[in-house]
Amino acid sequence: MSGNIFGQPIASRDLGPGLPAMFDRYKSRVEQELSRSVRLPEGTDPYTLIRYHLGWADQRGVTARSAISQGKAMRPTLCLFACEALEEDPDRALPAAAALELIHNFSLIHDDIQDGDATRHHRPTVWAVWGVAKALVAGNVLRAVADMSLSGLLDKGLDPDRTLMVTEVLTEAYLEMIEGQYLDISFEGRPDIGMSEYLAMISRKTGALIRCSLNLGAVIASHDSRTIESFRECGRSLGYVFQIRDDVMGVWGDLELTGKPVGDIQRKKNSLPVVHAMSQAKGQDKDALVGIYEKQHLTDDDVATVLDVMERVDTRGFASRLAAEHGEQALEALSGVELAPEARREVEDLVDFLLVRDH
Amino acid sequence: MSGNIFGQPIASRDLGPGLPAMFDRYKSRVEQELSRSVRLPEGTDPYTLIRYHLGWADQRGVTARSAISQGKAMRPTLCLFACEALEEDPDRALPAAAALELIHNFSLIHDDIQDGDATRHHRPTVWAVWGVAKALVAGNVLRAVADMSLSGLLDKGLDPDRTLMVTEVLTEAYLEMIEGQYLDISFEGRPDIGMSEYLAMISRKTGALIRCSLNLGAVIASHDSRTIESFRECGRSLGYVFQIRDDVMGVWGDLELTGKPVGDIQRKKNSLPVVHAMSQAKGQDKDALVGIYEKQHLTDDDVATVLDVMERVDTRGFASRLAAEHGEQALEALSGVELAPEARREVEDLVDFLLVRDH
Repeated sequence: MSGNIFGQPIASRDLGPGLPAMFDRYKSRVEQELSRSVRLPEGTDPYTLIRYHLGWADQRGVTARSAISQGKAMRPTLCLFACEALEEDPDRALPAAAALELIHNFSLIHDDIQDGDATRHHRPTVWAVWGVAKALVAGNVLRAVADMSLSGLLDKGLDPDRTLMVTEVLTEAYLEMIEGQYLDISFEGRPDIGMSEYLAMISRKTGALIRCSLNLGAVIASHDSRTIESFRECGRSLGYVFQIRDDVMGVWGDLELTGKPVGDIQRKKNSLPVVHAMSQAKGQDKDALVGIYEKQHLTDDDVATVLDVMERVDTRGFASRLAAEHGEQALEALSGVELAPEARREVEDLVDFLLVRDH
Repeated sequence: MSGNIFGQPIASRDLGPGLPAMFDRYKSRVEQELSRSVRLPEGTDPYTLIRYHLGWADQRGVTARSAISQGKAMRPTLCLFACEALEEDPDRALPAAAALELIHNFSLIHDDIQDGDATRHHRPTVWAVWGVAKALVAGNVLRAVADMSLSGLLDKGLDPDRTLMVTEVLTEAYLEMIEGQYLDISFEGRPDIGMSEYLAMISRKTGALIRCSLNLGAVIASHDSRTIESFRECGRSLGYVFQIRDDVMGVWGDLELTGKPVGDIQRKKNSLPVVHAMSQAKGQDKDALVGIYEKQHLTDDDVATVLDVMERVDTRGFASRLAAEHGEQALEALSGVELAPEARREVEDLVDFLLVRDH
């Protein structure tokens, strides 16, 4: 085993306040894996679209100065962390970590098409620049490139059995993610989504890949099925924590920080706060919400009314408590796994970060 | 080895004239594999969209009487044939055969979105019924289901090494197919596409998966790399034969037979006939073509003019000769492989069919 640098505090740079050390520790390795081992030829379509989406190039394909400037690479980080926490060289998991990041980005390219979102991270989205047809295909290419990166696991010394298992776990999570996207689309225009229905959707759409990230790191590092299952369970809970915080930021987050042009209320996005308010509001408040969500476009007054109702039914409090509960479950899931104290503390730091992050 | 029924002539039923016996021989097995082993739950979105696309259900999800009524399942047939020709039980290759058919259908669902085609096989396309967002996601689901079906190879007794190789060969072909789709989109509105550029595109867009079909059957049946390479080369040539004939039918094929609402000339589709005519026409003919292809919409007179020019530069003759050449190469590719005389004759029948098929 090499490269375990637990306990060496590294200052987070350029990544905002509070980002746990594990992000910084793996950042450059993930970047290297993505730019060196993953086949994304420069100056060639459709790879220019992909490089643009990843923040590696501008619209003309000219290489950007700072690669992957936009993401914190959470999924690769979780994957490498699980591997290292189980005392295996995290470099071994790099091809899987890269695949996770690429599949995540594939889903973003297609999501932007589905939602008609023209802006992401303060830049025009791929379809907004190149049109739907090319963006759709670029997304599909990215998905294939992700799959191809997995063959790198054999070069890292993983046996074919294990490599095949990684492939299957990733495909299963991918399918769940897509099914979740489908559910999300189906929810559009339905003000009657219940909380459990909503949580089942996000556990697929966002949760599956986050769960998979820890799961894959464990599959690569360990042959003990209980250990692998524990990391998988931990990942499942982290998925909720992540998405609940995302939904809260979508309503109350700072525009500058999220880079989103309009809040989720104005966009009538089905997210946890509105699902909660809709199910908890009574009398006049309920009538007001229903009336507002029947409208095509919401005014600033409508948004203010919705926020008032959320205040009265304590939507933020509910979201905080729900996220904290899942955070506890994430820690609990690993309680039976033997881990170095530093590794366990890093999981706690991770949960703390996911509960309060502002980006 | 079981199930080899070479030499037993079986009448083709419901599949049109001239379809080689191998199609009929494997048809029910492929249908069974798709409906039994592949996870396509009835009555559940997004699987209703997929079942509809495959011809298994109507728009309400009600099961159609005859499953897969619309396709000849060429890719699965080629895969199973290669396996059986190499004296391995073709049932062993069924999970790969199913994956090929599903990936092909995934590409059709996304293709219809990209091209804005609202009709396929005389029915509204998936996006035309359910909208672009849901169709896009249904396609992605189908792709994942295809990947998942590959794990069935382990149940058939294939070892993890070989299963992993199948996965890699399929992913590689998939990526090439997508890159070909991208090229095809890039060609739109460009009247200056050269023949070699065009052929390079179709060898990816259509050829990659056809090549892969024979390739996978051989990978499953044989450990001899020269044999595998020979089937791969044969498949590469067959891909050209298939697509060239497709392009010819797109211009001169009967509307009833192809199920296409308008001919490829009227649609200004970049296909082999127009690429040929554009590169061969001189003087007035060339000017006429260029003028016509600068128009937004083509009149019946325009189409007649284009057909006249194609007549004068012998476009059909060129296409026939080119297809025949690739047909020869397909046979030649297998000349060094030891095959039963019946198997070799079936390859000849296949080439003959692909050269003249009308569906």
